Amino acid sequence: MARVLTPQAEDFPRWYQDVIAKAELAENGPVRGSQVIRPTGWAIWERMVAEVDLRIKDAGAENASFPLLIPQSYLQREAEHVEGFAPELAVVTIGGGKELDEPAVIRPTSETVIGEFMAKWVQSYRDLPLLLNQWANVLRWEKRTRLFLRSSEFHWQEGHTAHATKDDARAYARRILHDVYEDFMVNVLAIPVVVGRKTVRERFAGATDTYTLEGLMRDGKALQMGTSHELGQNFAKAFDIGFLGGDGQQHHAWTTSWGVSTRMVGGLIMAHGDDNGLRVPPALAPVQAYVIVVKDGEGVAETAAQLHEELKAAGVRVKLDTRTDIPFGRRAVDAELRGYPVRIELGPRDLKEGNVTIARRVDGSKTPVAVGAVAKAVVEALEADQKSLHDAALAYREAHTADAATLAEAIEAAGDGFARLPWADCGVEGENEANAKGVSVRCLVRADGSVPDSEDEAGLVAYLARSY
Amino acid sequence: MARVLTPQAEDFPRWYQDVIAKAELAENGPVRGSQVIRPTGWAIWERMVAEVDLRIKDAGAENASFPLLIPQSYLQREAEHVEGFAPELAVVTIGGGKELDEPAVIRPTSETVIGEFMAKWVQSYRDLPLLLNQWANVLRWEKRTRLFLRSSEFHWQEGHTAHATKDDARAYARRILHDVYEDFMVNVLAIPVVVGRKTVRERFAGATDTYTLEGLMRDGKALQMGTSHELGQNFAKAFDIGFLGGDGQQHHAWTTSWGVSTRMVGGLIMAHGDDNGLRVPPALAPVQAYVIVVKDGEGVAETAAQLHEELKAAGVRVKLDTRTDIPFGRRAVDAELRGYPVRIELGPRDLKEGNVTIARRVDGSKTPVAVGAVAKAVVEALEADQKSLHDAALAYREAHTADAATLAEAIEAAGDGFARLPWADCGVEGENEANAKGVSVRCLVRADGSVPDSEDEAGLVAYLARSY
Repeated sequence: MARVLTPQAEDFPRWYQDVIAKAELAENGPVRGSQVIRPTGWAIWERMVAEVDLRIKDAGAENASFPLLIPQSYLQREAEHVEGFAPELAVVTIGGGKELDEPAVIRPTSETVIGEFMAKWVQSYRDLPLLLNQWANVLRWEKRTRLFLRSSEFHWQEGHTAHATKDDARAYARRILHDVYEDFMVNVLAIPVVVGRKTVRERFAGATDTYTLEGLMRDGKALQMGTSHELGQNFAKAFDIGFLGGDGQQHHAWTTSWGVSTRMVGGLIMAHGDDNGLRVPPALAPVQAYVIVVKDGEGVAETAAQLHEELKAAGVRVKLDTRTDIPFGRRAVDAELRGYPVRIELGPRDLKEGNVTIARRVDGSKTPVAVGAVAKAVVEALEADQKSLHDAALAYREAHTADAATLAEAIEAAGDGFARLPWADCGVEGENEANAKGVSVRCLVRADGSVPDSEDEAGLVAYLARSY
Repeated sequence: MARVLTPQAEDFPRWYQDVIAKAELAENGPVRGSQVIRPTGWAIWERMVAEVDLRIKDAGAENASFPLLIPQSYLQREAEHVEGFAPELAVVTIGGGKELDEPAVIRPTSETVIGEFMAKWVQSYRDLPLLLNQWANVLRWEKRTRLFLRSSEFHWQEGHTAHATKDDARAYARRILHDVYEDFMVNVLAIPVVVGRKTVRERFAGATDTYTLEGLMRDGKALQMGTSHELGQNFAKAFDIGFLGGDGQQHHAWTTSWGVSTRMVGGLIMAHGDDNGLRVPPALAPVQAYVIVVKDGEGVAETAAQLHEELKAAGVRVKLDTRTDIPFGRRAVDAELRGYPVRIELGPRDLKEGNVTIARRVDGSKTPVAVGAVAKAVVEALEADQKSLHDAALAYREAHTADAATLAEAIEAAGDGFARLPWADCGVEGENEANAKGVSVRCLVRADGSVPDSEDEAGLVAYLARSY
């Protein structure tokens, strides 16, 4: 196959740009930092949305929609929040041809405006928990942008909940972390994430506790794939989200927020992609099976249409390509680039013997299969390849995770993956030192891998890495 | 039942506001003209999205995502377009703490930015047709706003396509009009729409031909429910969307755009709602059947759970309400307000005789049904009520459509519904005169009800009405 992409080993960032361009996933938009997500890229995001949304609904949250524009004064009500976001705001100063009395900002995130409405809707402990989510676009004026990973406008879901107690808020933030995000990332994205707690330095602006899921990319850099925050009573106090408790007293609620974004598309590309393009895990893939007519001939079109129907009936997301006016080689390269897990190739020669070829994207294998056995073979291949993508990503992570005894060792090891270092041997000073060298503490975990309640617990392990 | 809403006959606009508030559909946002769509309202929109999206995909268009912010200069490239939208723009002048070199506008619609990218992607006739759609928020700084019907920010889908010929563009704009929009509105929303052609005065800014679907609300006013536009070569020339034809010559493409929005939620409320609240057509309803425990008692909770499962298994969208700590009356009123088509009420008394009560929202009937026969009865009720809502809306429209012989008669008749007047007896002058009296020409249709190719065809009929 002709070289279409810069090889990963030669220049990983260039490879990333190449894949996005050649697989027609996205392009830069005209306003700095904005992006156009093309159908192939957007279909991947739509599948992410479908899978995450199912899990959010299972966790009891309901979707709603809050305004894009937020009065500038709202942001200022929570001190850390405004400090964190003020430098990144896009400000609307003119509306309907007139200067606005109060400028409005395009939401960089919606804690403030949702806090305002939660305060209206929550009166009594019976109104709690209030579990909301929205799928929305947000905008942060970033200095350095990169398609999917750090764009000014991006798409995400942001969950916002209010609870009667700190314990309930914590339990819910963790439920989202594990039952929604971790489950989705491991079982659908096939990315084995390290799930832990952010340090104070890395915490969300306005949160008391931030939990994170960190994936390892194939260049040894970490990517924050999603976060879930306990906001304590910070926003409840700033927006007066109060309720009459069962005890007859007024209390402030405890709130959480949590989100995953189009950034996950970038993670998907970098966690599984290879020198031929994307490899999309079957459980996610918008196109799981690609029925492709190599060359016209007796019975070819009919068999292709029949296999297309059979696979659809078997619950496979399938696409039929009969464009024999475009050279087969080009179409096959495109299918590789887009990472379709299974190709079913039909030509007159094989078909004469009753066979088609099943080409698998994950291991590159090509196997002749009898027409009558295709549906079963495809379903089995999809299951096997989901597992093998996950296992390969896990093996890669294990091979690129080093236990370090000192900060210096950890910074060195973080050149090529995760470095694990006892948090007691790192601490805030070590963290600052690492940061100065381009390495950050991605998260803290307990020795058994579980998520700590506080960074002051004994025996915590810090994961250090370079990151996106 | 206690009076919860202002009756329609007393004050229709007030009734509309009351329903939205009491059914918890939406509220005004903090920035003028913005709206918060609450879970009950958003679930209705999500169902609209799902049904329309299916039909758009069946029509071959693919979803993508274009940026929220558009350079101000883009708008200026198409003269009518900028004239139409300039007064309604929200302008971002500050980004990341700095005045921007070129201000960016929040998209009021995306012909311009999509035109820019189509020009890059279309090179040859082989790249056509290019069929794109996006689900997005847009913003128009409206002077007078009303929840769902006319809000500054709203949600919609906007389709944008490019074609090699005028005929192909026309055929596609019409395909969307009929196969996507009309089919959805009639068969899912149960709203019988008048499908026709806009006059030059009412045409989209930048279009050569605008087609529309007009519903009649229960106060006798028309609502434009969706539009599909042929843009001719206006945008293709402004953005240089050119292609090399099969004839070896360079040509400009022909483009279309088409959209439906959250405004349809307002249409749904006003086309079917009554003095007890919403009536949501079963084919659309996010909750089709509401299993509600009247009072606890032997076997009640178990039977409720069992019916919930049975209905789910039968493919019914069902919700279970076991909140017996809230008075039954209040919960029943809420269910009426939200327009759930069927309620299954369970209490110990009926259950002793093996019965539950099926309460139907559309006709207000209450019937005892044996537990074992519930699933079948519910499925039948849903089908029947979908039809009866549609038939009632059609009967209402027929009773409120008058054939007028003169413009004066038409303007008079438009006080209470549609007035049909030969376009030859109205014309541009008549249209202007009607407009001065608060009546507009909603669309032109042929005598046989089909959609005209031009307003100059002989024998056209104009539909006049007051409108939203």
